[in-house]
Amino acid sequence: MMLVKRLRSSTVRWADQLAPFLSHNAQVQTQRFYSSSPYNDGPSVPRGTPDIDPSALTIERTSSPKRLLDPKDLIFGRNFTDHMLSIEWTAQDGWLPPRITPYQNLSLDPSACVFHYAFTCFEGMKAYKDPQNRIRLFRPDRNMYRLNRSSSRIALPTFDGDKFTELISKFVELEERFIPKQKGYSLYIRPTMIGTQNTLGVGPPGSALLYVIASPVGPYYPTGFKAISLEATESAVRAWPGGVGDRKLGANYAPCIVPQIDAAKRGYQQNLWLFGEEGYVTEVGTMNMFVAWVNEEGVKELITAPLDGTILEGVTRESILALAREKLEPEGWTVSERKYTMAEMKKAADEGRLLEAFGAGTAAVVSPVKAVTWRGEEIKIPLSPGKETGPLAESFWNWMLAIQYGEVDHPWSQIVSN
Amino acid sequence: MMLVKRLRSSTVRWADQLAPFLSHNAQVQTQRFYSSSPYNDGPSVPRGTPDIDPSALTIERTSSPKRLLDPKDLIFGRNFTDHMLSIEWTAQDGWLPPRITPYQNLSLDPSACVFHYAFTCFEGMKAYKDPQNRIRLFRPDRNMYRLNRSSSRIALPTFDGDKFTELISKFVELEERFIPKQKGYSLYIRPTMIGTQNTLGVGPPGSALLYVIASPVGPYYPTGFKAISLEATESAVRAWPGGVGDRKLGANYAPCIVPQIDAAKRGYQQNLWLFGEEGYVTEVGTMNMFVAWVNEEGVKELITAPLDGTILEGVTRESILALAREKLEPEGWTVSERKYTMAEMKKAADEGRLLEAFGAGTAAVVSPVKAVTWRGEEIKIPLSPGKETGPLAESFWNWMLAIQYGEVDHPWSQIVSN
Repeated sequence: MMLVKRLRSSTVRWADQLAPFLSHNAQVQTQRFYSSSPYNDGPSVPRGTPDIDPSALTIERTSSPKRLLDPKDLIFGRNFTDHMLSIEWTAQDGWLPPRITPYQNLSLDPSACVFHYAFTCFEGMKAYKDPQNRIRLFRPDRNMYRLNRSSSRIALPTFDGDKFTELISKFVELEERFIPKQKGYSLYIRPTMIGTQNTLGVGPPGSALLYVIASPVGPYYPTGFKAISLEATESAVRAWPGGVGDRKLGANYAPCIVPQIDAAKRGYQQNLWLFGEEGYVTEVGTMNMFVAWVNEEGVKELITAPLDGTILEGVTRESILALAREKLEPEGWTVSERKYTMAEMKKAADEGRLLEAFGAGTAAVVSPVKAVTWRGEEIKIPLSPGKETGPLAESFWNWMLAIQYGEVDHPWSQIVSN
Repeated sequence: MMLVKRLRSSTVRWADQLAPFLSHNAQVQTQRFYSSSPYNDGPSVPRGTPDIDPSALTIERTSSPKRLLDPKDLIFGRNFTDHMLSIEWTAQDGWLPPRITPYQNLSLDPSACVFHYAFTCFEGMKAYKDPQNRIRLFRPDRNMYRLNRSSSRIALPTFDGDKFTELISKFVELEERFIPKQKGYSLYIRPTMIGTQNTLGVGPPGSALLYVIASPVGPYYPTGFKAISLEATESAVRAWPGGVGDRKLGANYAPCIVPQIDAAKRGYQQNLWLFGEEGYVTEVGTMNMFVAWVNEEGVKELITAPLDGTILEGVTRESILALAREKLEPEGWTVSERKYTMAEMKKAADEGRLLEAFGAGTAAVVSPVKAVTWRGEEIKIPLSPGKETGPLAESFWNWMLAIQYGEVDHPWSQIVSN
């Protein structure tokens, strides 16, 4: 049960620990950090210490397999599979041999830096069953890219994404019985990296743990779409230029709960994050935000905020943009990654040009929005007649699920097993 | 060893958990959050659930007391005392009976929300031995106030600060042998609150753990002051209006490491945080920043950034401001909490008006600054002849230590035991 207990005995002095770290890891991180393009090459692995080695994987199977829940009783992120995948890292020895063990508690010293300084980042991805009963992952390379970007931003180690994907695939195969077969159901996979060094000194962690747990989940909309009402948050700001809002850090999540509670108390399902006096629309809850309108030039436009450092690089966001360019642009649509404001949304609504709005993320895929309340006024957003979605959101949902569940052949979907 | 294992069995559904939470706790938090004054009244305890109860404390003493280290071998935050203080909280039952137990690992489910969403906040405070060998705390009420402000901002529970201080006092008395007697030495106390609920759902934690560990520490300057050189960071921004930079959240710390590493690689001991195109000076590393100059009106001025939501409400900052108003204003100084820029600092330096600069925080008390590099130029800051500090920083250091170590009678210093 003492999964990371060995790290407790680490008594490396601060200076000793910093020196080797700076020699290979910081340089990579610095390069990441100063890069102006959010889509630069993925981070390299620190030189001189071993990378993740899938061939060294050991598997300890559980002796008490869990009973599968009735799919209708699945709650997001509450029930987990039999096992977990863990890979420890130390500044001195690099990535240690990966282990699949029974799902178990982490045992950490109360001074472990994750508890004090939020050394944590994570990913959200899913495994699906296709009609041939094969397991599929959706664009795992994008999650690996992003996790490396996240970890390097908080001085946690980087790794080879293909190797980690190989391990995740083995883990998912082992847990195959937990992947529901019905379309809309999946196995939610949560790779997480935490700093584990035992020190209250504020510095780069000398040890870390990368682990993966998985939770079988049902469809976000078990009885069909349910459009949501948003409240635009004016009192809090999620992210800012030069901050870390474009990385999937734990640090971006805890501060979002109180504004979310505030919106919920007033009857809104989510809050809408704005930025600046101009009221730029950025994200919705923990999803990226898309708006469709006929713009001032009379052209149909699908728009989402650009990756300026304040926007999470959503895999669903990127996929929807690509699908829109492939399928909507030939029909005369413009697809834009640019800033847009609440005032523009309101003007479009007032002039009858607002077509649709929806959130996009791994959990829901798309989440149709029916209204945004901003400065006391409600901006109504059209839905398809008799439906809780607009036609665009529904199309993206259909296109995405067909790929994710392997109903169409597409390079984004990766078969794990046959 | 399974300190919080009981929480793992919590299977409260999201909606069930949110409802009672909103009924008492969110209201308090909302009020905190929207308040415009950074020095409003401390948060209330959620109504309807028990507050912290010092009378319910149980103590389990260690059977293997640690050997005391030679004071010269003490490293900040690396070695801890024999015991820890823990108080669990659940949304349903409020604060559970406090426990002092042997120092031990925390055993947490890998889905615990602290690992994923950075539900963590903390305090830094110290216990001192006075010349009569009594234990003293320094302004614990300010730490309690701030911890409540921090926890409520991330939907963690609040508590009665006096009751928690009473428990900390008992804990410190039990650990008395770890408090070095020499002036400059102390027992660093780390109250920490983490969210412990086992769910990947992003929401207010239904359970939390408040715990205290303590580490004996030596003086920050064992051989006298050592003035530091700073690099002004232009590529990253620590905090933003509407963000959480004024709360002592873990989330504010992990993102600061890479800029710190970058500055260290170029030979600077700390980075200086700026804000905005104007280059407002905000904080230095993890300390508040003070500058002394003869201002444009020819008046000697001690200046620090105002509490506009981007500045941590440092207890040392507040104490230095109070001491300055008491001791410097009668000598013709102006004491200011207002914004100031790098350009103003540079102009003052160029015109020979820059007198002194120093960081202020619990660990170092004051940390003299000898230079700041900004946009490739080095701004030199005067020191006292033949010294590694200026006269002001040295005075504050002397005044603060005399109070902290009980050499003068002062209401800020609270005697724990006789």
